[in-house]
Amino acid sequence: MTTARRDTYTPQSLLAVAVTVFNERGYDGTSMEHLSKAAGISKSSIYHHVSGKEELLRRAVSRALDGLFGILDEPPAREGRAVERLEYVTRRMVEVLTAELPYVTLLLRVRGNTATERWAMERRREFDHQVAELLKAAAADGDVRGDIEVRLATRLVFGMINSIVEWYRPGRGELDSAEVAEAVAKLVFEGLRKEG
Amino acid sequence: MTTARRDTYTPQSLLAVAVTVFNERGYDGTSMEHLSKAAGISKSSIYHHVSGKEELLRRAVSRALDGLFGILDEPPAREGRAVERLEYVTRRMVEVLTAELPYVTLLLRVRGNTATERWAMERRREFDHQVAELLKAAAADGDVRGDIEVRLATRLVFGMINSIVEWYRPGRGELDSAEVAEAVAKLVFEGLRKEG
Repeated sequence: MTTARRDTYTPQSLLAVAVTVFNERGYDGTSMEHLSKAAGISKSSIYHHVSGKEELLRRAVSRALDGLFGILDEPPAREGRAVERLEYVTRRMVEVLTAELPYVTLLLRVRGNTATERWAMERRREFDHQVAELLKAAAADGDVRGDIEVRLATRLVFGMINSIVEWYRPGRGELDSAEVAEAVAKLVFEGLRKEG
Repeated sequence: MTTARRDTYTPQSLLAVAVTVFNERGYDGTSMEHLSKAAGISKSSIYHHVSGKEELLRRAVSRALDGLFGILDEPPAREGRAVERLEYVTRRMVEVLTAELPYVTLLLRVRGNTATERWAMERRREFDHQVAELLKAAAADGDVRGDIEVRLATRLVFGMINSIVEWYRPGRGELDSAEVAEAVAKLVFEGLRKEG
């Protein structure tokens, strides 16, 4: 038995289109009309998959957040000295960011005008907080320098990592994800200066 | 002799209002109407000072660019070993960014839709290029590590510094400009890990 199909979208492929449009126009600036045009299907076909654009936003930022929080459950993020766990988390953050580039980009741009946006910001702060706690533990162990305030160090490290979304484009073939992760880990933990 | 004054704005104070509005609404999203409302003076009064919003943009980004390029002319940026010059430039970039926060924020958000925006992006790239050259010279001297590609290291360091505009608010009294500059210099040149 065959049925007439109105579109060939899956929830996953529709999400990919929506994220691209959200990143181009901003979430606030995107209407269901824009999504319908970009996907090449009618608005009612979109409503067949999701309740509206806020559900698409929630799914998209959830994908980014699940990737990030997933790192904290991985064994090397849970076992061993705090400084080693922190370095592992730093590398993996870069890998998740590059692997889930449009989703993390959207997460970083969310501004808090709707309940879903505020929830995403809250979850993002919770993730940042957990990484800051790891840094604090590493400082307490005497493994990282104590002369940069933990909150400031966390902000600066996140600032470096998050800025990667501004220029990293997968498939350009210049730098792969592991090379960027390696460079970030070296810079953050050892710094640029050669030991004298 | 007194003359009737339509407004008490100077080119400088009008510029400060315009930059605030540009940063809130985006340059593209700002009309002369928005500027007139924010300044509390008529559009014709604004035209008394400037030819239009693109002139305000040029003046605003020029202020940021003059601050940044000015660093490269300062003696410690010109004399001595490349690694010391680079560290000096890194600290001063943070200081200029925090001192000229709204102007540098605007510069970093410019997207290239008008001739002035493209000119600003070109100048920004030129500044980045000059800092990258300094890093290259420091690597050639053997003073900075050679295992992170110069362009990647430059991007990551600029990413960290530029991210400061996202959270730094002068006058909150938590952290002054010099403390942030010191933290960035330590992180970038020495890294987080305590030498074993």
